[in-house]
Amino acid sequence: MGAGPTLKRIDPNLMALAYAIHSQMLQAADQIARAIGQDNVSYDTDVLEHHGHSDWSTSNSPVRAAAVVYPRTTADVSAIARICNALSVPMVPFGAGSSVEGNFSQPHSGICIDFSHMDQIIAFHPDDMDVVVQPGVNWVDLNRHIAHAGLFAPLDPSPTATIGGMVSTNCSGTNAMRYGTMKDWVLNLTVVLADGTVIKTRRRPRKTSAGYNLTSLFVGAEGTLGIVTEATLKLAPIPQDTSVAVVAFGSIRDAAAAASELIRSGIQLAALELMDDVQMRILNEHGSEAVRRRKWEEKPTLFVKFSGTTDGIKSDAARVGEIIRGSAQLHFAKSKQEEQDLWAARKEALFTMVNIRPRGTEIWSTDVAVPVSRLAEIIDLSKRECGQLGIFASVIGHVGDGNFHVAMMYDPRDEEQKRAVARCVHNMMSRALEMEGTVSGEHAIGIGKKDCLVDELGQDTIGLMRTVKRAVDPKWVMNPGKVFDR
Amino acid sequence: MGAGPTLKRIDPNLMALAYAIHSQMLQAADQIARAIGQDNVSYDTDVLEHHGHSDWSTSNSPVRAAAVVYPRTTADVSAIARICNALSVPMVPFGAGSSVEGNFSQPHSGICIDFSHMDQIIAFHPDDMDVVVQPGVNWVDLNRHIAHAGLFAPLDPSPTATIGGMVSTNCSGTNAMRYGTMKDWVLNLTVVLADGTVIKTRRRPRKTSAGYNLTSLFVGAEGTLGIVTEATLKLAPIPQDTSVAVVAFGSIRDAAAAASELIRSGIQLAALELMDDVQMRILNEHGSEAVRRRKWEEKPTLFVKFSGTTDGIKSDAARVGEIIRGSAQLHFAKSKQEEQDLWAARKEALFTMVNIRPRGTEIWSTDVAVPVSRLAEIIDLSKRECGQLGIFASVIGHVGDGNFHVAMMYDPRDEEQKRAVARCVHNMMSRALEMEGTVSGEHAIGIGKKDCLVDELGQDTIGLMRTVKRAVDPKWVMNPGKVFDR
Repeated sequence: MGAGPTLKRIDPNLMALAYAIHSQMLQAADQIARAIGQDNVSYDTDVLEHHGHSDWSTSNSPVRAAAVVYPRTTADVSAIARICNALSVPMVPFGAGSSVEGNFSQPHSGICIDFSHMDQIIAFHPDDMDVVVQPGVNWVDLNRHIAHAGLFAPLDPSPTATIGGMVSTNCSGTNAMRYGTMKDWVLNLTVVLADGTVIKTRRRPRKTSAGYNLTSLFVGAEGTLGIVTEATLKLAPIPQDTSVAVVAFGSIRDAAAAASELIRSGIQLAALELMDDVQMRILNEHGSEAVRRRKWEEKPTLFVKFSGTTDGIKSDAARVGEIIRGSAQLHFAKSKQEEQDLWAARKEALFTMVNIRPRGTEIWSTDVAVPVSRLAEIIDLSKRECGQLGIFASVIGHVGDGNFHVAMMYDPRDEEQKRAVARCVHNMMSRALEMEGTVSGEHAIGIGKKDCLVDELGQDTIGLMRTVKRAVDPKWVMNPGKVFDR
Repeated sequence: MGAGPTLKRIDPNLMALAYAIHSQMLQAADQIARAIGQDNVSYDTDVLEHHGHSDWSTSNSPVRAAAVVYPRTTADVSAIARICNALSVPMVPFGAGSSVEGNFSQPHSGICIDFSHMDQIIAFHPDDMDVVVQPGVNWVDLNRHIAHAGLFAPLDPSPTATIGGMVSTNCSGTNAMRYGTMKDWVLNLTVVLADGTVIKTRRRPRKTSAGYNLTSLFVGAEGTLGIVTEATLKLAPIPQDTSVAVVAFGSIRDAAAAASELIRSGIQLAALELMDDVQMRILNEHGSEAVRRRKWEEKPTLFVKFSGTTDGIKSDAARVGEIIRGSAQLHFAKSKQEEQDLWAARKEALFTMVNIRPRGTEIWSTDVAVPVSRLAEIIDLSKRECGQLGIFASVIGHVGDGNFHVAMMYDPRDEEQKRAVARCVHNMMSRALEMEGTVSGEHAIGIGKKDCLVDELGQDTIGLMRTVKRAVDPKWVMNPGKVFDR
């Protein structure tokens, strides 16, 4: 999907020089099998394929790993790293495979490390409001498991995502407006370095200013600096109550202006999401039964989520009403059922679009973020450009953070259309950078956006990242080909 | 003050080999004078003394810088770095001099870089809720300057602190429970690296997952990886309303238990602070006039700060009342004046103690933080130990974060008493580490706690910090002697 892998800047001869050849990779897999057990190593073609490609991803690589290995402990991962590092074999961690920028693809082949057997909650400390987990834990399962204590991990990426991948991409989702992103919820990480050394970035205090913030260095590094084998996450109290309101506007600009006022008001919203007229039409036509109980206005719509005490929400809702009044009509959920239905509309938007796409077409989803004052302008310009190109495109925005996704549908066999989409994406990213934004609000860089990252930060800043990478992983074996090139 | 400089592990011959000798440092100063202007370089003994020692600091070094330089621009700082790096001259940034762990002392001499001339607000973007500032900007001034837009930077360290130092120590204060620490409020940093290269860690999006989080690498690195010359800070809306309540308990354990329940309740408090019986007695006896309007119960007391909408606060206050009821009597401020007076009691606590100390005595203030469930225990044990040693000690705690300070008074000429205090401090830190805490909640490491940091994180984790440091600053000229040794 997308523009395909961006391997163009890597000389194949250099690759061969830099990394072990295939037979040596198999030797490494063999050594790993001896270290962690034959049953924990797979060479099965279907398994390799599943671990090397994603239909959800904007970028993929045609290269596959030599083997997939399944560690069960930090010591297993350390053994794997020692072997791979000694033989110059790339190591690529794999969580749920739900990332969308080719973050787990294997452009240099190597060993894919699957964390599905490291899926244990190691320690839950309700009184400290934290939990220690292995990287293969799914966040939905985790939240279900700890809900009895009135606590939750307040991130909401793909429902299949696991903690390791969430840490490595610095994920977020609709909760980010109130709760921030993954980096704000990690207290410490246990990490296996390239040579197998195991470090722990912190003990377990909720607040510290002791030494370098290595935790945040690994969060969002996409496994290029080390492999996360354990994480302690801060937890938040589950709010006493929640509520949802929706409000439709005459234009994206009006919606964004209202969003801006809400953000500035100081009312602590749980989420503030935007869907454009196209998305709303899709809900009417193809939404789930629950969502189609309501006849949606096919206009740019804000979804406002409240959370807190029941009284606090009443007060917040009244203030939101005052701010919006005059420009549009707010509709508040009148029951818990309606609240769920309204929010379901927001949550199922992307899936609905993927499901209804004509056979053979693919979806390219962008992820830029800009300072919030520029949001209306960039969404407006981007929609107009897509319109001129005759591409089907819809917008979902985490407007509370200035982050939005444009999902563009195209036929990958239609070269001209594909080029048009690529141009559209490129222009959107350039525009975001002109507005002092970022090319990646929450999907990270992976293999597809390395050039964009250079455009965003410049060679000197990437140079510093490269200096750190080279020092920590001198053989460049940790998830190579991601974030930036050697 | 305190245990004095901890230079014991540095061989003086190695120092001489590693860094330029004094005459070469003066040559560097001379080159800097040519680059940034003669008026911006000082060799004055009083100036050097002022920049090399602090009565507020638990650790100091007897060594002084060869010169103090006053850059006005990022280009000036870049020129300074180029010169110092070429000649192997240490560079030590200096903000307000309000840090307390010898963070700006110059154990290896070198050039002290004073940022008092880089005190400009470069750009204020109220619609994006951020502000771009130079490192010499004082946070109180900043908040005064932007208050008209209904925004503020929600940190509250020493009122004299400036942004550069706040970034470099990852400061916090009483607002941390609600708003987090400095690392949570920095969107990007412009940093001069050891060789003079200027990098910017990010553009200006409020949310991003693009590349390594270099911003967080520099926050809390105490200037050992680079010199911050510009920072973009996120801002928060000033809450519509605030309120304060106080509640006295029979014991520290009861107070901490109540605090724990409040934290778990999900009520979003603005702050939750604890002062012990000793601190309360000091307020009655030596507080300011405003504070002495009230006769304080001389018992462990929680200070609860509310913020939000007026109605929201009413609802929060009612819930706090329900939780506390039965164990103690809550007193809510009945007017804005009383609210100010109550909070003033908390804010002036440390200053009052410093002011009333007998001539010749000094105060050693600790800064450990532990998982919140262990807070009552460690405060209790620490108080008891101080009591047994006959040392005057009082406790102020940011209990919402598990962080607290014990201020111990001692006579530095009394060797036995000094040793007793040192032992008490050491035991408190060991206890905090056993409880999976940290030796530094918000004061950073500086020169006095390097050994403790090794105890806290272990040699492998410090080894990774050292690897990063060595790669980024190969000549080890950026604020050497801080955080960890070479």
